[in-house]
Amino acid sequence: MNNRYEIIAAEMKKYAEKTEKYIADTFGESDDDIKEVEDAMKYSLFAGGKRIRPYLVFSFCRLFGGDDKAALPFAAAIEMIHTFSLIHDDLPCMDNDDMRRGKPTNHKVYGEATALLAGDALALRAFGVCASNECVSPEIALEAVKELSFASSERGMVGGQIMDMYGETHTLSLDNIKKLQGLKTGALIRASAKLGALAAGVDIDDDRMRDAVDYADGIGLAFQIKDDILDVLGDEKILGKPIGSDAENSKNTFVKHMSIEEAQTYAKSVTESAKKKIERYDGCENLLTLADYLLERQA
Amino acid sequence: MNNRYEIIAAEMKKYAEKTEKYIADTFGESDDDIKEVEDAMKYSLFAGGKRIRPYLVFSFCRLFGGDDKAALPFAAAIEMIHTFSLIHDDLPCMDNDDMRRGKPTNHKVYGEATALLAGDALALRAFGVCASNECVSPEIALEAVKELSFASSERGMVGGQIMDMYGETHTLSLDNIKKLQGLKTGALIRASAKLGALAAGVDIDDDRMRDAVDYADGIGLAFQIKDDILDVLGDEKILGKPIGSDAENSKNTFVKHMSIEEAQTYAKSVTESAKKKIERYDGCENLLTLADYLLERQA
Repeated sequence: MNNRYEIIAAEMKKYAEKTEKYIADTFGESDDDIKEVEDAMKYSLFAGGKRIRPYLVFSFCRLFGGDDKAALPFAAAIEMIHTFSLIHDDLPCMDNDDMRRGKPTNHKVYGEATALLAGDALALRAFGVCASNECVSPEIALEAVKELSFASSERGMVGGQIMDMYGETHTLSLDNIKKLQGLKTGALIRASAKLGALAAGVDIDDDRMRDAVDYADGIGLAFQIKDDILDVLGDEKILGKPIGSDAENSKNTFVKHMSIEEAQTYAKSVTESAKKKIERYDGCENLLTLADYLLERQA
Repeated sequence: MNNRYEIIAAEMKKYAEKTEKYIADTFGESDDDIKEVEDAMKYSLFAGGKRIRPYLVFSFCRLFGGDDKAALPFAAAIEMIHTFSLIHDDLPCMDNDDMRRGKPTNHKVYGEATALLAGDALALRAFGVCASNECVSPEIALEAVKELSFASSERGMVGGQIMDMYGETHTLSLDNIKKLQGLKTGALIRASAKLGALAAGVDIDDDRMRDAVDYADGIGLAFQIKDDILDVLGDEKILGKPIGSDAENSKNTFVKHMSIEEAQTYAKSVTESAKKKIERYDGCENLLTLADYLLERQA
């Protein structure tokens, strides 16, 4: 890892901790009757993870002159939605996964019903956290709620999950894989950039908003291509999960439609285009590094 | 049924249709890739139901001088949250129910994974609908989002579902049954009254807000006691579901702690107290009738 990457990794860690602390504080004390479900929520919330989404919220807020404080509730809300989606994705009726990030999945620890409800509660709570942002105007907080709602539901993330399910029994075209990923992971990554810009007071129709979205769409796509490459070439120990599972599960991946080399070239080119969208802004360096870092990651 | 009840039933039907039309319009056209999940969402949304929650939103909005238009997005959002909770409650890992309102449950028609995601999408979409209320100030719309988030998540509805699950293997005290029901069904009924008052511009600390909440808590409690009575005394044909299922499933009900006569007296007294909270307001007649109607319903 070169020095540039060490610096960004350290910065992401700092913002991850800030976000986690904020989320933890929203809970307050549990009463006994709901302790089990709040424990389940916290188990997945604080199970680690790169926290790329919160980092994007903070970075775009800063890039456009906003304050970290204004980004924080939005970053927390997005991470709660992301965590909810992982819990539900792992359930037996979905991917039926036993392990995530080297730990037993939520339902393996708390049982299926509690995991379902913990996911539900995280999704429902996230909007209250988003709406409670007192460092932005009510108009901006409302816009963020609307964006988060749209990006996460069936015209966003959930739509991608549905396409993914359909893909388990059907072969998807490259265009459909791009669409699927653009919804399943892309929509929330895009929302992260938008909420960051919103936190800095950038109008939804502003050019800067469009640039933020283009950058996010680019790194989101590159992220997914890289994921597919790592599932073939990765080191199981670094990844914390077995490789080759996509091919085994006949998943619709980018590497099903192109060679590893082509996929690497594709991810690189998408990353470069993403970087171009924001390089004219003062203070964009960390976002340029982030794009490279995600492209060259080994896990 | 007496004339007073026929009038309120007709009025509830009118508002139910208004709410359903509004919800239907929020969908727009489905693209093919997400049609399945939107069909699943609509299947449960438009499967009938009393639509008590939307009716409460409209009624409290009117009672406090507000316009139906301001109540409509809030009513729709609450009904979407309610529908989501029914879909997830019916899932195999929860109550594992095959039938609801005389129709196969969502997962029986669409499969478990799609039902899970349809529920998720309804919950996520609901907040966007709530936030899109353009007939109230941004401050009020935000307050409604926060209220809906709190009332539906683990310190509200989901907390009640967790207590209900716990109760399947434990005997609950009467106080705990009251708490369970106050969360599981009560929290969203309370939120309905609050969002109606908010739509009329009533401040969260206003006396009228407190009266609306007290009324809602009262009819919510009476509603549940009546449900438990109907599960013993009801007519299966009118109810549309088998009676005696609570006793069979060792459910923690009010009639487990008191005789049917005592439960009837209790429901009656709670209803009368609820009515008292609002009888001083001009135009309260429909809410007084609603309380009696829910108490004397046969289904």
